[in-house]
Amino acid sequence: MSRGAMARLAVAARAFSASASGAGAGGVSMVQGASRGIGLEFVRQLLRRSGEGRVVATCRAPGSAAELQKLKEEHAPGRLTLLPLDVTDESTIEAAAASITETHGSLDLLINSTGILSIPNVIEPETTLSKVQKSSLMLAYEVNAVGPILVIKHMWPLLKVGGRSETGRGFALVANMSARVSSIGDNALGGWHAYRASKTALNQLTKTVSVEFGRKDNIACILLHPGTVDTDLSRPFQRNVPKGKLFTREFSVQKLLSIIDNVKKSDNGKFFAWDGQEIPW
Amino acid sequence: MSRGAMARLAVAARAFSASASGAGAGGVSMVQGASRGIGLEFVRQLLRRSGEGRVVATCRAPGSAAELQKLKEEHAPGRLTLLPLDVTDESTIEAAAASITETHGSLDLLINSTGILSIPNVIEPETTLSKVQKSSLMLAYEVNAVGPILVIKHMWPLLKVGGRSETGRGFALVANMSARVSSIGDNALGGWHAYRASKTALNQLTKTVSVEFGRKDNIACILLHPGTVDTDLSRPFQRNVPKGKLFTREFSVQKLLSIIDNVKKSDNGKFFAWDGQEIPW
Ligand SMILES: NC(=O)c1ccc[n+]([C@@H]2O[C@H](COP(=O)([O-])OP(=O)(O)OC[C@H]3O[C@@H](n4cnc5c(N)ncnc54)[C@H](OP(=O)(O)O)[C@@H]3O)[C@@H](O)[C@H]2O)c1
Ligand SMILES: NC(=O)c1ccc[n+]([C@@H]2O[C@H](COP(=O)([O-])OP(=O)(O)OC[C@H]3O[C@@H](n4cnc5c(N)ncnc54)[C@H](OP(=O)(O)O)[C@@H]3O)[C@@H](O)[C@H]2O)c1
Repeated sequence: MSRGAMARLAVAARAFSASASGAGAGGVSMVQGASRGIGLEFVRQLLRRSGEGRVVATCRAPGSAAELQKLKEEHAPGRLTLLPLDVTDESTIEAAAASITETHGSLDLLINSTGILSIPNVIEPETTLSKVQKSSLMLAYEVNAVGPILVIKHMWPLLKVGGRSETGRGFALVANMSARVSSIGDNALGGWHAYRASKTALNQLTKTVSVEFGRKDNIACILLHPGTVDTDLSRPFQRNVPKGKLFTREFSVQKLLSIIDNVKKSDNGKFFAWDGQEIPW
Repeated sequence: MSRGAMARLAVAARAFSASASGAGAGGVSMVQGASRGIGLEFVRQLLRRSGEGRVVATCRAPGSAAELQKLKEEHAPGRLTLLPLDVTDESTIEAAAASITETHGSLDLLINSTGILSIPNVIEPETTLSKVQKSSLMLAYEVNAVGPILVIKHMWPLLKVGGRSETGRGFALVANMSARVSSIGDNALGGWHAYRASKTALNQLTKTVSVEFGRKDNIACILLHPGTVDTDLSRPFQRNVPKGKLFTREFSVQKLLSIIDNVKKSDNGKFFAWDGQEIPW
C-alpha cells in the first residue's frame, strides 16, 4: 500500500472511531488565524452555539493568545483545542494536520481567517503606484493567498472524511476570508495594490480548488467578505468609514455564520458578502 | 527642488529634445520579455510596420539573444535598442529606465510580455491541489504579477511624457500579457494554480494602476490574451489543443497589434482576447 493510501486509511479509521465515540454532534470546526479579530470571534460563537461541536483554533503563538486560553478554560475539556500554525511556515501546517488527525480524525468546517493589510514599517497599504514595494507584494501574497491554500492542501484528507450528516450540512465546507476590495470588476478606487492583488489571487485559488472538490469530493469552498469590521486590521482606516458602516465583530460573524449554515453544495466556488449578496469577480 | 521633481524635469527636457530631433514619428515602444516567443514577434512586427518608430527590447541576457541581435543588425542604427532586464531583479528595471531616459526620453507604448508557466524541475503546472507547492506559487507571482508592475512603476515617468500626437494615439499605452485562464468567472477546468493565480493578480494590479492613470495621466493600461500560441511556453501542452486553435506567433501578434492600434482611452483597464472580445474577470 502507498504511503498516501495508508495515511488516508489512518484518517478514515480515526474518523470512524471519533464519530463512534459520540464526538460527532456539531462536528469539528477549525478556525485558522484565531488569536484576534474575526477569527477569535468565530471561535467564540462556534463554541457558544453548539453544545457539543468541537473547535480547533490555530494561531502563531497559542501560548500567548490570552483570549483563546480563557475560552479554553471556560469550556468543557476537549471542546477547544489550540494549535500553533503560522501560514508562512508550511511545517507548522503539516504538524497541525497530523495533530488534528490524531485527536479529531476529520474536519467538517475550515475557516481561514488569517490576513494582513498593514504592519508598521513592513507593509503599508499603497496610495499610489510609486509606493508599491516588491517586498510588500510578496509578503501579502504569501500570507493572504498562499497561506490559506496550503492549509486547505494539508487539511484535505481530514475534510474528505468530514461533513457527514451529524453537522446537518452533508458536506465539508471551507470558508476563506476574502475582502470586497479583491473584486476587479468593483475596483473603482485603486490603491492597496498588495492587499487587493493577494485577495484577488486567493479568490482564483479558491475557485480553482472548488472545481476539483466539486468533481471528486464531498467538500465545498466559499469566499466571504465580512464587511468593514472593527478589528486591528481596519483600525488605521476607520476614520474613512461612514457612520454605521463599521460592524462589530459580533454582528459580522453572526452574519457570516448564517451564510455558512445555509450554504448549499451548489454554492461551491462562490464569493458572498456578509449580507449574502454575491460579489462580482 | 525635490529629487523626484528634478528627475521629472530631466525626463521632460529629454522628451522635448528627442521629439525636436525628429525621432518622434512612430514613437518609442518598449517590449519587455523580448528574447523569445510573443515578445520577440512584437519586436519584429513593430520594426517592420513603421519606418521610423524606435523599439527598446529588453530581456535577461541580450548578449545571447541571437534573434534580437540579428534584428538589430538588419535595421538602421538606433531603431532597435537592446537592454538587460530581469523582472525578478528590480535594480535591472531601474537601470533600464535610466538608460531609456537618457537615450529616448519618453515611452509611447510598453508591452510586458514576460511570463512563466513551466520550468522543468522548478515549476510544473499543477493538475491537482496535492501538487501545489509554495515555491511555485511564489515564483509565478514574482515573475508574472510583481514583475510587470515594477516595470510600469519605473517606466511611469517615461510614459507620462509619452503618447503625444506623433503616435496617432494621443496617449501612452501599457499592454500586459495576461491569459484567458486568469479569468475566475471563466474557470471551469481547475488546475494550473500558480499560473492562474499570478495572472489573476496581474489583472487586479493592472486594473488598480489603470484607475490611478485614468485619474492623473495621459496613459491607459490594457490586458491581452494572445490565444494559444506556438511558443516554448505552450509547447508541453500543445497536444491538448484542438486542430486549428494553435496560432502562429505572426497571427497572434498581428491581432494583438490591431487591438493596440485601435484602443481608445476609454478602454483603460480592460482585458481583451486576440479577437477583440472582452474577457470576464
Ligand atoms: N476587518 C475588516 O474590516 C476586514 C474587511 C475585509 C476583509 N477582512 C479579512 O478578514 C480576515 C480577518 O481579519 P481581521 O480584521 O480579523 O484581522 P486582525 O484582527 O488583524 O487579525 C488577523 C489575524 O491573522 C493572524 N495572522 C497574521 N499573520 C499570520 C501568519 N503568518 N500565520 C497565522 N496567522 C497570522 C493574526 O495572528 P497574530 O495574532 O499572530 O498576529 C490574527 O489572528 C482577514 O483575512 C482580513 O483580510 C477583514
Ligand atoms: N503562448 C501561449 O499560448 C500563451 C497563452 C496565454 C498567455 N501567454 C502569455 O504571453 C506572454 C508571452 O508568452 P510566450 O508564449 O511568448 O512565452 P515564452 O516563449 O516562454 O517566452 C517567455 C519570455 O519571458 C521571458 N522571461 C522569463 N523569465 C523572465 C525574467 N525573470 N525576466 C525577464 N524575462 C523573463 C523569457 O526570457 P528568457 O529567454 O530570458 O527565458 C522569454 O522571453 C506570457 O506572459 C504568457 O503568460 C502565452
